[in-house]
Amino acid sequence: MTLETPPGYAPLSEATLPAFLAAVPALANRLGGTPADWRVNEVGDGNLNLVFLVEGPGHDGRTAGLCVKQSLPYLRLVGEGWPLDLNRAWFEQRAMALHAAGAAGRAPALLHYDPALYAIVMERLSPHVILRRGLVQGIRYPKLAEHVSDYLAGTLYATSDLALPASKKRPLVAAFTANDALCRLTEDVIFTQPYMKHPHNRWTSPQLDATAEAVRTDTAWKLAASRLKLKFMASPEALIHGDLHTGSIMVTETDTRVIDPEFAFFGPMGFDVGAIIGNLLLNYLSQDGHATEEHPRDAYQDWVLATVEELWTLFRAKFLHLWRTSGEGDAYPAALFAGPEGTACLETERRTYLDRLFTDALGFAGAKITRRILGLAHNMDLETIADPDLRALCETRCLALARSLMVETGRYPTIKSVTEAARHVRRTVTAVGPVDRRGLGWDAL
Amino acid sequence: MTLETPPGYAPLSEATLPAFLAAVPALANRLGGTPADWRVNEVGDGNLNLVFLVEGPGHDGRTAGLCVKQSLPYLRLVGEGWPLDLNRAWFEQRAMALHAAGAAGRAPALLHYDPALYAIVMERLSPHVILRRGLVQGIRYPKLAEHVSDYLAGTLYATSDLALPASKKRPLVAAFTANDALCRLTEDVIFTQPYMKHPHNRWTSPQLDATAEAVRTDTAWKLAASRLKLKFMASPEALIHGDLHTGSIMVTETDTRVIDPEFAFFGPMGFDVGAIIGNLLLNYLSQDGHATEEHPRDAYQDWVLATVEELWTLFRAKFLHLWRTSGEGDAYPAALFAGPEGTACLETERRTYLDRLFTDALGFAGAKITRRILGLAHNMDLETIADPDLRALCETRCLALARSLMVETGRYPTIKSVTEAARHVRRTVTAVGPVDRRGLGWDAL
Repeated sequence: MTLETPPGYAPLSEATLPAFLAAVPALANRLGGTPADWRVNEVGDGNLNLVFLVEGPGHDGRTAGLCVKQSLPYLRLVGEGWPLDLNRAWFEQRAMALHAAGAAGRAPALLHYDPALYAIVMERLSPHVILRRGLVQGIRYPKLAEHVSDYLAGTLYATSDLALPASKKRPLVAAFTANDALCRLTEDVIFTQPYMKHPHNRWTSPQLDATAEAVRTDTAWKLAASRLKLKFMASPEALIHGDLHTGSIMVTETDTRVIDPEFAFFGPMGFDVGAIIGNLLLNYLSQDGHATEEHPRDAYQDWVLATVEELWTLFRAKFLHLWRTSGEGDAYPAALFAGPEGTACLETERRTYLDRLFTDALGFAGAKITRRILGLAHNMDLETIADPDLRALCETRCLALARSLMVETGRYPTIKSVTEAARHVRRTVTAVGPVDRRGLGWDAL
Repeated sequence: MTLETPPGYAPLSEATLPAFLAAVPALANRLGGTPADWRVNEVGDGNLNLVFLVEGPGHDGRTAGLCVKQSLPYLRLVGEGWPLDLNRAWFEQRAMALHAAGAAGRAPALLHYDPALYAIVMERLSPHVILRRGLVQGIRYPKLAEHVSDYLAGTLYATSDLALPASKKRPLVAAFTANDALCRLTEDVIFTQPYMKHPHNRWTSPQLDATAEAVRTDTAWKLAASRLKLKFMASPEALIHGDLHTGSIMVTETDTRVIDPEFAFFGPMGFDVGAIIGNLLLNYLSQDGHATEEHPRDAYQDWVLATVEELWTLFRAKFLHLWRTSGEGDAYPAALFAGPEGTACLETERRTYLDRLFTDALGFAGAKITRRILGLAHNMDLETIADPDLRALCETRCLALARSLMVETGRYPTIKSVTEAARHVRRTVTAVGPVDRRGLGWDAL
């Protein structure tokens, strides 16, 4: 460890974790037995942190588990050369607590936080798997859209100016502005670096070399990315998760939990909604790299797009329902909109609000797709396609869709038009090469 | 004093002020002589605070002056029944310091801040008068548009995401979220109370009784106010003054200084721009209440509208110039827009940005006019019109223009169209009564 860390901080290990847990009676009781009985595995395969799963004998013959997530003082994906604020653990546990109020049961339960070790202890999810892995394997999750829309509508509405009085929201906004390091990371690696020459960028080479170069001179695309960046920086609409891709969701066929809100801050709601939609669209277009004659993926791809449609449709309905039936926010004071005319007017305004949120989400979805192909962090959806030519073709389709969502955002009136565009791109983009700057060719759609 | 205040706080008085100033060597030196030589006058005629002017013998035969502004723990306009956070003095002096960097010389110099007494010591402006008083008297200020546009462009640009890196802006945003009390005051008295029955409201009665009642059932007007309120609450574009009416500007024929930024926080730039435009438009429409046969005001009214046009035109040009020539902000990274195509694209984007800011400003201008006629705080521009029927007529014209700016905002492409609407209202609204919900009658314009 060459990086300086605060007094009292040290990375936990499989060897030191039992003593840490034993010192917190509620955790020790939950695991049962004695520390010697506890099995610990470090499983952090993510980009940023240490993650330990702990199993104890529990009580009544049923084993009990915990998950411990600890910040490292650098970006694990890159190494110690990229220091990263330990405080992200504080923001994560705070967001977990605030989000639990809006979307109970859609995230692991928060059990303990140790501020000196920057360590969060939470419910261990079992037998959950990371959604992205399941999607790459072609597994269906029939409750996914239902549950993720619960999470999105619940967390975003509850922390917005629609539900929260301004005097309660302002101190929360202030607290999360300190999550500067992770906001900056998003600003850099999502909205800036993929559109310029940067040592962090990589792509399927040489297949996408010309594509990446063309993006760097595509002024309309760069302008769209910059507008989205400004929206990201200065739209404190709600406490957003900030990193809601398919790797931040754990699933079984009947349960869905959102994890890892360490990027949380008060930002545009469309960023979360767009993140999950963008990652599902990317997965849809990656399936052609995984399909075989024995195991075609066409029907599965239909399911992925149906899930995108359902997710948005349910989110919209649930958000509207919450707004109609609850909230003490200072925006649109109820007293001003009593009576039939006021009620009708406010309902129109709600729909306008959601239409604007939809447009934001599509732009962000495009930005999230682009960065996974040209930027620092890539997705296993595409990375596990062994044939680089086939992978590059899938990626070219992704980029064509992403650019259209960002540059031609106004062309998408409904979620159906988005899934149709995804199908269109899959059908019509048949060769690797720079993305057509004339857009998707809507006349043919 | 029945309100509880922090230890060390006590309201200053003409008697105790000299000892306070004598304890700060730089201030005592500036005044010259001994405390016994200093003349102190309490002159706070505003709504919120104690204000003292101090004069000392100075040096070299030239007298020297200071101004001391101290927070009271309540809203002076209403009395001790309305407590108000003392900390507003902290926000004011912090805003003065930050704004001085962007618009040097357009505000009194900040000389000292006493955190225990919540007292700001600043340059005494002399022979400056409050702009509003001068306007009511029909005095021209040839440099007004030039100077106020300097202030607006300089302060707003310098504290925006265009000029300030996100990591520097975020802590400032956080610090000013604590100005909750004054933000809430704006949210309540500007955006909410004038549109409902509320004990704080007053208006010229009985002349405007039907008008006020009609506003309370004018759904389109209330919706516009609510949208503006949400924009006010959640658009941290720049450190705005927050109360930039014509009573917050001190002038001579050659100098202009902005005072009283105690409402400062990170909000929408259009709120400041709209505040000054709205107050000038209100003044224009109030002049008919002051004109006499001997002293007609028509030519002066032309000057007021010419100043509105010049102010916006200069602001726009100066803001664009600053953006083209300076700034290290994270929005629209320069590296992405090098070369002729990038430069041209960014220039178009800048103009789009200013067009949007213009639209925001018009809506806020309308809201600022409305609250001065139906809400808590009124303007001497209208209040000093002795004949209540004539006053009510002027106010009816103000409200017709205000509603149009708020509800028909999209109908105003240029500042010229705004001043034309003001002339139109003056010409066509000839009777007191509820504002026509069909709008300004644009076909006749």
